[in-house]
Amino acid sequence: MIKATVTGRIWSTKKLREMPAGSILEVQVEGTSSTMLAFDPLSCGIGEKVIVATGSVAASWFPGKAPPVDALIVGLIDETLNPNA
Amino acid sequence: MIKATVTGRIWSTKKLREMPAGSILEVQVEGTSSTMLAFDPLSCGIGEKVIVATGSVAASWFPGKAPPVDALIVGLIDETLNPNA
Amino acid sequence: MIKATVTGRIWSTKKLREMPAGSILEVQVEGTSSTMLAFDPLSCGIGEKVIVATGSVAASWFPGKAPPVDALIVGLIDETLNPNA
Amino acid sequence: MIKATVTGRIWSTKKLREMPAGSILEVQVEGTSSTMLAFDPLSCGIGEKVIVATGSVAASWFPGKAPPVDALIVGLIDETLNPNA
Amino acid sequence: MIKATVTGRIWSTKKLREMPAGSILEVQVEGTSSTMLAFDPLSCGIGEKVIVATGSVAASWFPGKAPPVDALIVGLIDETLNPNA
Repeated sequence: MIKATVTGRIWSTKKLREMPAGSILEVQVEGTSSTMLAFDPLSCGIGEKVIVATGSVAASWFPGKAPPVDALIVGLIDETLNPNA
Repeated sequence: MIKATVTGRIWSTKKLREMPAGSILEVQVEGTSSTMLAFDPLSCGIGEKVIVATGSVAASWFPGKAPPVDALIVGLIDETLNPNA
Repeated sequence: MIKATVTGRIWSTKKLREMPAGSILEVQVEGTSSTMLAFDPLSCGIGEKVIVATGSVAASWFPGKAPPVDALIVGLIDETLNPNA
Repeated sequence: MIKATVTGRIWSTKKLREMPAGSILEVQVEGTSSTMLAFDPLSCGIGEKVIVATGSVAASWFPGKAPPVDALIVGLIDETLNPNA
Repeated sequence: MIKATVTGRIWSTKKLREMPAGSILEVQVEGTSSTMLAFDPLSCGIGEKVIVATGSVAASWFPGKAPPVDALIVGLIDETLNPNA
């Protein structure tokens, strides 16, 4: 999984009808300038640190037929214990 | 998923017969100089910002036997709300 | 698989209920400054060198329905024999 | 998918018996110095520009049990229309 | 697939019992300083050039239930014909 920070929210009105209802957030991968888009079932806010799972495991989480979604926020991060940082 | 901008269109006459009919677009991944090719079911135009899903979830979207397609445009982006940008 | 060093531990109280109980560790990919998060079934400690498997094979390891977990620590590294290093 | 140029051909006599008969080509990913190896069902030549699909969708293309092949040339590129290039 | 050179061998005594018996090698991806770990069913030696398949196709190669292995050496490279190199 990836540790990332929520940086934005995407609006898309023209999309595949198989896309699930709900938010798609822009997140920045920690320690990089890379961003990616992830489906958010946890109602995250801008600035929150999150755990993102990617690939087919993200799609398989949805009930019923797997939608074309390859990134899913699976948790909010309360804290990272990093004794060397 | 990846946020990208449509930059071109690919013509391919010699291809596997399992490739679905339709457009393959060249897109540039936002914030980078990397490009990739994605199947476009949404009739996107050059310059439009899109959401691209990659990997096996792209192939699974197609009806019937999954074709060898690993990138799919799943939505057009109207707007990104990014309060810190 | 990836060779990595355990660098931290993640606390997450708000998460998907499909996430398995257990530790999520932060690991640094050897030879890089990149970090990733991996589920730890082996009770690893900070500073230990580990083997991480990624993608759907990580999720498939879990009994029952595959959870949205895309990285799994599959072994601790005792030693690397590298005659040229 | 990836846009790439065929740069070489691989000879391998000692290989898994599950590897399909046929050519494995070395291709260079466009716009980078990265190379990868892809199975070629289209009899491509050195210097040709191709579309490469990667991941499990490449393996699923083969009839019968999926072989351990994660990259497949799915088309030759005739032309790219890129009005801004 | 990836073209790589075998650079080392990993010893791991504490590992998941689902890990298959056999060697895990460290390989360096050609043209880069990146290394990865791959399961070796071909008894490769240090310094040999190999073809590595990654992702779920590596796990699916194993008989029975797929183990959490995401990289597999599928062939040794005898030679690369690269007329422009």
